[in-house]
Amino acid sequence: MANPTAAMLVIGDEILSGRTRDSNMYYLAGELTRHGIRLTEVRVVADEPAAIIAAVNALRAQYDHVFTSGGIGPTHDDITADAIAAAFEVEITHRADAMALLAAHYDRSGLEFNDARKRMARIPDGAVLIDNPVSTAPGFSLVNVHVMAGVPNIFQAMVASVLPSLTGGEPLLSQSLRVNRGEGEVAGPFGALAAEFPDLSMGSYPFITNGAHGTNLVIRGTDAGQIGRAMTRLAALFG
Amino acid sequence: MANPTAAMLVIGDEILSGRTRDSNMYYLAGELTRHGIRLTEVRVVADEPAAIIAAVNALRAQYDHVFTSGGIGPTHDDITADAIAAAFEVEITHRADAMALLAAHYDRSGLEFNDARKRMARIPDGAVLIDNPVSTAPGFSLVNVHVMAGVPNIFQAMVASVLPSLTGGEPLLSQSLRVNRGEGEVAGPFGALAAEFPDLSMGSYPFITNGAHGTNLVIRGTDAGQIGRAMTRLAALFG
Repeated sequence: MANPTAAMLVIGDEILSGRTRDSNMYYLAGELTRHGIRLTEVRVVADEPAAIIAAVNALRAQYDHVFTSGGIGPTHDDITADAIAAAFEVEITHRADAMALLAAHYDRSGLEFNDARKRMARIPDGAVLIDNPVSTAPGFSLVNVHVMAGVPNIFQAMVASVLPSLTGGEPLLSQSLRVNRGEGEVAGPFGALAAEFPDLSMGSYPFITNGAHGTNLVIRGTDAGQIGRAMTRLAALFG
Repeated sequence: MANPTAAMLVIGDEILSGRTRDSNMYYLAGELTRHGIRLTEVRVVADEPAAIIAAVNALRAQYDHVFTSGGIGPTHDDITADAIAAAFEVEITHRADAMALLAAHYDRSGLEFNDARKRMARIPDGAVLIDNPVSTAPGFSLVNVHVMAGVPNIFQAMVASVLPSLTGGEPLLSQSLRVNRGEGEVAGPFGALAAEFPDLSMGSYPFITNGAHGTNLVIRGTDAGQIGRAMTRLAALFG
């Protein structure tokens, strides 16, 4: 059975301007791989409604799941929820379940539940809330689009909330061999081996350590036996 | 005058599988911002010809420049140059200028200039080589698409080779104010200020330090005077 596919959409001027180094992509990639969901594309777009809407609609049509990060806070630049509603052409309101969660949270913390904070209860019709154990303000899933915060520890908590509910596939496995030869030395035999195992994906990643060229050879797939056989061949070639 | 726009296309199974944390996006974002080119979108796609071709054609039509990273080495999974040629519907050959560079390099280093290494001289017709002072194998620019290696130090050297030849715009400036209040406290007045300065972009980025909520407020634009006036107002509100 083929693994489910996913795309990620990072919404953030702060990434595109070089102010912030994204860490959510790396985190999500690892989590999805462990869950047997194949991350197939990532896009990063600016905090612009048209850009978000176009990307969400392109990605949700093409992949089994779309995970978004960023733009669901209380400030004027937090426009993701409205853009998702527009992409699906559904209404968006201050939803009662989200309002209740937030009202209780601000009541406990003694902070005013002001209009800005109420913005975080704006949820598109038909969406299911994603639990946020860090700071309460929820994410949401609408059909196959999972909308999460950009702050890394909140993003990670939301991924942990949503991922167990999604059907994964066979684990995506990988093994690698580090060889002390440049890519140009290993390319011929490695390519021939890759051609012998069409169900596996083989990649080579060069590095330079102390001026010496080396290459990490990586074999990916879902069939552990086949990966093992390929690794044995690889070790015989370059070990 | 509006700033030129750019997109980045990262080609790499190793990013999507969570094996490698991308660093080229963060580097390029900062360099383009300093050069006055507005990075507007990033995509990460797998090592699949159809995915690369579709992304390149979508992005080169939409933005002034496209910068790609990854997939131009000597191994079977290095398919970027062929995919770019296919996207532009031009021929690709072992080009004489690239062959001469590589032949001289391997002659100097005493390594065999084998078929795998000759693959790195495959350059689409009409492209201009991008200098690679680190390891010789060149990148190339074809019309508005700049094709570079994925290994970070080579990527950075190629960016340094190509960027001075591109027309930049007014520098993209930013200033920020760190306030010891949560986003929900600053959102109202900050949003009102943003509405007063429609030519500037204002973003807020929450953080938690030692359990206390804080927010970085960032103002971006190209008019230093206007940014200064907005920062003065911001400091009066929250300083």
